[in-house]
Parts: sequence; C-alpha cells; structure tokens
Amino acid sequence: MKRNNLESCQIVIFGGTGDLTHRKLMPAFYNLLAKGSLPNNFSIISIGKGNKDRQDYLDDIYQSLQKFVNDKLQDEFWNSLKEKIYYENFDFEDKKRYQNLKEELERLDNEYQTHNKRIFYLAVPPRYFGIIVDNLEEASLLNPLEPSWPRVVIEKPFGYDLESAKRLNKQITKVFPEENIYRIDHYLGKEMLQSMMMIRFANLVFEPVWNNKYIDNIQIISNETVGVGKRGRYYEKSGALRDMVQNHMLQILALTAMEPPTDMKTESVRDEKIKVFKSLANFDSKMIADYVVRGQYDTGTVDNEEVIAYRDEDDVAADSKTETFVALKLLINNMRWSGVPFYIKTGKRLNEKFTEVIIEFKSSFHPSYSKRFIDLKPNLLAIKIQPDEGVYFQFNAKELDSKENIVPVKMNFCQNCGIEINSPEAYERLMHSVMIGDQTLFTRWDEVEYSWKFVDQISEAWTKKDVNFPNYQAGSDGPQAAHDLLAKDELKWWGV
Amino acid sequence: MKRNNLESCQIVIFGGTGDLTHRKLMPAFYNLLAKGSLPNNFSIISIGKGNKDRQDYLDDIYQSLQKFVNDKLQDEFWNSLKEKIYYENFDFEDKKRYQNLKEELERLDNEYQTHNKRIFYLAVPPRYFGIIVDNLEEASLLNPLEPSWPRVVIEKPFGYDLESAKRLNKQITKVFPEENIYRIDHYLGKEMLQSMMMIRFANLVFEPVWNNKYIDNIQIISNETVGVGKRGRYYEKSGALRDMVQNHMLQILALTAMEPPTDMKTESVRDEKIKVFKSLANFDSKMIADYVVRGQYDTGTVDNEEVIAYRDEDDVAADSKTETFVALKLLINNMRWSGVPFYIKTGKRLNEKFTEVIIEFKSSFHPSYSKRFIDLKPNLLAIKIQPDEGVYFQFNAKELDSKENIVPVKMNFCQNCGIEINSPEAYERLMHSVMIGDQTLFTRWDEVEYSWKFVDQISEAWTKKDVNFPNYQAGSDGPQAAHDLLAKDELKWWGV
Repeated sequence: MKRNNLESCQIVIFGGTGDLTHRKLMPAFYNLLAKGSLPNNFSIISIGKGNKDRQDYLDDIYQSLQKFVNDKLQDEFWNSLKEKIYYENFDFEDKKRYQNLKEELERLDNEYQTHNKRIFYLAVPPRYFGIIVDNLEEASLLNPLEPSWPRVVIEKPFGYDLESAKRLNKQITKVFPEENIYRIDHYLGKEMLQSMMMIRFANLVFEPVWNNKYIDNIQIISNETVGVGKRGRYYEKSGALRDMVQNHMLQILALTAMEPPTDMKTESVRDEKIKVFKSLANFDSKMIADYVVRGQYDTGTVDNEEVIAYRDEDDVAADSKTETFVALKLLINNMRWSGVPFYIKTGKRLNEKFTEVIIEFKSSFHPSYSKRFIDLKPNLLAIKIQPDEGVYFQFNAKELDSKENIVPVKMNFCQNCGIEINSPEAYERLMHSVMIGDQTLFTRWDEVEYSWKFVDQISEAWTKKDVNFPNYQAGSDGPQAAHDLLAKDELKWWGV
Repeated sequence: MKRNNLESCQIVIFGGTGDLTHRKLMPAFYNLLAKGSLPNNFSIISIGKGNKDRQDYLDDIYQSLQKFVNDKLQDEFWNSLKEKIYYENFDFEDKKRYQNLKEELERLDNEYQTHNKRIFYLAVPPRYFGIIVDNLEEASLLNPLEPSWPRVVIEKPFGYDLESAKRLNKQITKVFPEENIYRIDHYLGKEMLQSMMMIRFANLVFEPVWNNKYIDNIQIISNETVGVGKRGRYYEKSGALRDMVQNHMLQILALTAMEPPTDMKTESVRDEKIKVFKSLANFDSKMIADYVVRGQYDTGTVDNEEVIAYRDEDDVAADSKTETFVALKLLINNMRWSGVPFYIKTGKRLNEKFTEVIIEFKSSFHPSYSKRFIDLKPNLLAIKIQPDEGVYFQFNAKELDSKENIVPVKMNFCQNCGIEINSPEAYERLMHSVMIGDQTLFTRWDEVEYSWKFVDQISEAWTKKDVNFPNYQAGSDGPQAAHDLLAKDELKWWGV
C-alpha cells in the first residue's frame, strides 16, 4: 500500500475501548505505519467508556498490539504511533461532551496540520449510530461538509432487516451524503476477494467459460470452527443468516457473478453488483422449504476439545431458535447464469475452517462420445479466501503409467502459505481505502437494501415455521439436511 | 500397464547388438516384466552381428540393464527375463540363415506356446528394411499372414524424403498390410503426449478456448544440450529438420491442433492428425526465407564444459552444411487455427534441455477498457513433455498487498518430479502397444507422407541457397535469426 493520495487526516474512533479497536483497528494502523502507508500528518482520537488516562489507554493498546500484530512489535514504529493516539472518555449520549470534543479535535487539527479532514469511525453497537451522528452535527463537528469530508465509517450490522436498515440509513444520510459514508463489510478487504475481479477480467482463459454454458454450479462456503463465544447477546438477535449471509456471502456472490463493469471505477463496479442482487430469483414459501436449511450446534468435539451446545453459551436462551448454520440454493435469473445453481453454506462449530468460492464446471462431453469419459471428476476452480489465500485448479489428465485411465490433476497456488510474507489484514486495506477516499471496498446503500430484501424473505418464512434445534453436533460437517440439499441435485459440497 | 489383451508372442529383434536394443528395448522388456505387463508365454530372439554365444549376449544385456534401468535390478525379474532371451548371429543379407531362423523360431514357438504370433522388430539402418522383409517372406517366415499377425516394427528414419519414404513403404507393404506395420515415433510413447488428448477433451475448461479466438500463438520447443555424439554419420544425411521436425515435432503439432476425433479409436485419431497436415499452409520460397531458420553449432560451453563445433565431430565433414538447429513458423489453414502462428524450435547444444508445448493466450481486453490491463503478462498453458512431465499454467491476479497491481500467478504440476514414481520410458508403452495390437501411438503411412511433403519444401529450398555455418555457439540459445523470427511478430520464445 503506497502513500499515493494519502491526505492528512484525523481519525475519531467511537468505541475506542472495544474489541474491534483492540483487535483490528489499532493493529491495522500499526501495520500501515510500519509500511509507510500512513499520512505524515495524522492523529487518532479514541473515545471510549473506560475511565482511564491517555497513558493507561496506550498501555492497553500496546498489550493488544503484542497479541494481534503478527510480527514482533518494533519500538520505532510503536513510538511513532503512540505519539499520535489520544484518548477521551465519555458517554456517547452526553451532548455536552461533544463541545469539548470539538475543541480537542480543533486543537489536534492545528497541532498535526490535518486541515479539518476527519474520519469518524463508529465502532459501536448500531443503536448508537443515529445518536452519535446527530450529536456530531449538533455540535457543528461536521462543518464544513464537503463532497468527500468528513467521512463516516460504519460497522456491521447495518440494520436487522430491511425496515431497520432503512431507518438507520435515514439517520445517517440526513447528515452525511452517500459519498462520505463507508459501510464496512470486512470480507471485501480480503486479498483474494479484491483479486476476484483481476482473476476474472485480466485473464482471457476464464471469462469465456464463466457462464451457464460451461459452469455446472458455484458453491460459496464459509465454515468456522469457533462457536459464538462472548457474542451471544448480539448473535441471539442476528443468527448466521444476518451475521454472514446478508453481507459477506452475498458480497462474494456478487463479485463472482457480476458482469464485467464498464470500467473499474467504484460506482461502475457497484452498479454491476446491484444487477446481480436484482436478478436473484424471489423465494416463495415452497422454495424456502426446499432450498434453505438452518441449523444450530449441539455439544460436540472440535479440535479434540469438548465444547458446549449453542443453547448453553453465555447470553443465549435455553430454548433459542437462533440459527448458527445456513445452507441455501439460489438462482440468478439473467443470461449468464440462468440454470446454474449457486449454493451458499456458512456455519459455526463445524469440522473445518475455510472460506472459498468453488466453481464446478460441467462434464466435457456426453458419455456416449467415449466410454473413457464416463465418471470423470469435474473441472474445479476454487478461489480460496481464508485462511489460505490462493487458487486451486483441478482438471483431468492421463494417469501416469496407464494407457487410458483418466485422473484429476490438482494444481494449487497459495499466496500466504510461505512464511516470509504476511497477508495484510482486511482492516489495513479498508482503513487505507477510507483515508484515500476510495469506496470500492464498501457497500453502497442499494446493495444493503437489496440484500436485506433477499434475506428478509427467508427470515420471515422461518418465523412462521417451528424448527427442531439443535440439529447438528459441534465438530461435524453440519446438519444432514444441508447434504440432502445438494444430494437432491446429484451434487456434493466441495472444499479443497 | 495391465495384462489385458496381452497375447502370447515371440519378439524377433533385428539389430540385437545395437544401441537401441541395449538402451531402450531390453530395459523396456525388463520393466514390463517387473510390472507384470509381459505375456506369460513370451520369448525374445535377438539377431546381431557379434560372434558371441547366448551367455555372452546375456552378460552384455545384463550390463546394459544395470546402466539403463532406473531402479536397482532385481534378480527375480532378471532371471525370469533372461530365460526368455535367445541370440542368433548372422548377416541380414544371408538368405540361407533365414531358413535356420525359421526352424529356431518354430522350435521356440513350440517351447513357449506362442502360437506362431511373431513381432519382427527392425532396429537396423533403413537400408536393411527391404532386405530383411524380403528375406523373411522368401523363407516363409511370415506365414500364415493374418490381419494382425505377424507384426513388424520399424524404427526411424522412415526415408530421407518423400520419394525414398515411398520406396521404403512399397518394400514393406508389398509384404505386410498397413495394419500389421508399427512405425515408431517414440515421442508418441511419452507420457504427456499420450495425455494431450485427455487434457484437451476430458476437460470442459480447455476446449472452449482452444482456438484462434483465444489463442495468440503456440510454441513447440524441443531443446537439447547434447551434441551429435557418435551419430555423425547418420546425422550428416539427416540434420535437425529430418531428425526432429518431420516426425516428432509435427506429431506434437498434430496432437495439439487436431479436431476432436469422432471417437478415441486409432483410425479416428489418425484421421484427425492427417487433417492437420493437409491444412498446413504451403511454403513458397519467400516464406521459407522469412519463416524458417537453420543453424549449426560452433564451439562453446555446455554445462561448464568446453565442447567442440559440429564440424569437428566424428564422421562430420569439415565444411558440413547440415543443420543442427531449426526454428520455423507455420500456419494451419482451417476454421480453428486461421491466423494463429505455430512456432517450432529444435536444436542441439543449446543452453537448456526440455520439450514443451506452450500455448500463449491473447490479452483479455483492449487496453482502452482499463489502464490496469495494459502490459499484462499473457495467460500461458504449457504441456511439459520432458524431462519434467506436467502442466504449467500462468494467469493474472492481484499482487499481494497491493491495491491494483496485477501480477502473474504460476501454477505448476509435475508428475515425475517426486522421487517415488518413475515415469515409464516411451519404449515400454510402445512395446506394450505392439504386443496388444494397438497402433494408436504409431504413425500411419499417410502421416509419414504428408509430413515429408511439408519438410521437403524446406529442404529443397535450402539446397538451392548457401548458408553461413556455424552460426550459433554451443551452450547459447540458438542463432539470432530464431529470436528475430519471433521478434518480427512482437513475440518471444517461452520456456517454463
């Protein structure tokens, strides 16, 4: 990441004592600084709940960096970063404190020569989004409002359903224009998802076969081994459908399925993603019954450790109906994809941890062409998103030392499996994008709108129908119904 | 290689004391036996020039096997093989000796229960082909002549030009029908050339882009580091054009470029190969001057050793005009390949040793689509034939930790780079094919005919035009003119 277009700026983090700031944001700033990818004129003002002074806060951050930065911390970089970090402790609802904040930001703006360029990062629960934005405006903290400054960064979840998302968006757009709003979907910051467009469009070999004439089905899988952990309170209201499918999985789908944009600029790319969402086949209740599987984990064994059931996790109801697993089949009704099923699967406490897009190609010929071509393994192309980042390609060749047996050849490219290079964390890329004013890796409002529309059909149908949870063991490969979903189509879930 | 269809048989090798028998045929029989791929009822009768008894001959063979079999020899297999090997010493022109041979073969036929199924392997210089075949017939050694038995195996060179090839073919077909004739092109026995059809037709991802819409050019390269060695006498009359291009290189071309055959049977495949040869654009003298480069090596350094010039090699004329290097561009005038240049390059005493087919795809888009796509590296697919056997695939992706730099990703599959498995030598597959009566890996007469027609145009033009030899240093990458040939088309020779 280069310094190109890096403008001086102030970052104001609401939620400075929260998990996200400790685990993701501060490590991202540290790494960006170490790479020389922060502007020279730069400061961070963290606003948190803890009653602590600046030195206490810096000590806390230092401890987190030791845990969450992959490389050994270097004094040189830390010393340079810590000089730029300030801490304020106040209640986000306390309007008076915004006046103090204003004075403090103006003082630092002057000191760091950041020319009134501010980025407000809302690393707080959604109920605070509107409150903070209103208070910022009331305290005249957003003036002057220019086409690109100040910027506001909003963490997920962006709403609970279409209605709540609309309300939330109204609160924010009342104050900020769309082009100043950076809605985080951190999957878009992942290296291989950014590479997806290059792979598709910078190679002549892929685009000609990237359609329903050659592709049999596409699987988008994000398996986790972790449970809900300490996020029970949030997760109970969310579940896998809202937590993963509405945002990350549908964003991956859009990048995989979209048409080539008219150019590579932000709005052109977003326009194409929207077209995918608009082409999603609507679900009726029969389709939801047939095409969507939900699951919730029971006790089980993960990585040789006994783990508790979802219903026994902290802050989870003993009779919770919240799903920790979703598998679904969807169709995109356009020229390119008509007839090609897309399968999405995501869940917690599964036996493997990986996120991948797997493209399964059709068989080369009808078996009547040659008996040799019966029961061949399919051609597969997998874009591996995490933890391995890379590309896997499987095709058929003659078996070594055989006259005519055909066997699959497996080619693997992993860009982060070597030990010498660390892939940047998604948040590095995202923070950098915010600083240079590039919205490509953030979701536009209409993307959020269409993806909620799709997801709401499912969650509404679910509320009307009882479910028998738990239905899969922790450490298993998910509920049987998810396998049946593909077996009905004579397919199976891949994972390479 | 399985025992399926393995019929009992007698192998009669003319040239049993020659290099080919020692280096290739006997090691092939040893390996086939070790794999259980020889028939139970089986014998080898070697006919050579040396005045030695059977034990002497077996001792010689044992020494050669120690040198030329990759694995350590196992007594069990050698003891089993040597019991089946017999030796006869006579002059191939001595008609009387064929009567003795007949009695001996009948005796062994009886002893080994090989039911009069004979394979005559002519591992001798071409001038003996007609003589031996005539003598075999006169001595009634070929009776009864059935549709598939006895079989005759003929080593290259099959003629010196079209006329001599026709004469030779007449001598052989006077006695043997085409379906009993196995013309060796040992490249066809190489693993990855056998795999070429599977790769092309057992995968849906390749065939759609295997044409002039997506392919920019195809390069067929066979570089050698060795010099002419002790083969000066033969090579002086042959040169690289006849020794490599007329047979091996054009066979690789045919398998790479042919249409999908109506089925995978021998004659269907051969029919498609012929269509490629028939579609080769004819060369006029200007095209030969523009499209064909010949070279001859001078002194130089190969693998850190000083080596002599071609003209200083044994049995080579001090003013020899024989080429040890050929590079040429050819066009295939059909729907699939119109406009796609094929480049062939082969030479001795070059800086690298490999045989590969490299398919260079076109650029994905016109640069006006996006500046990001300017100066991208091309997509490459390489079929690696020797010494590495495998597939190399290069495509573009986002550079790690960069916003939009595009870099080539290189995927490599090598089936013989591991140490646990030895690829079978070409001759194993070929001998096995002869024994099961499968002519797929052998060249039909019309293939020989068309390839000589193509090559004769070039050699005739060459005889009319003087050449300034030597023109490349041993250990270099060949004459400058070969680079210029591609530079004119704004291309370069690959090698992956």
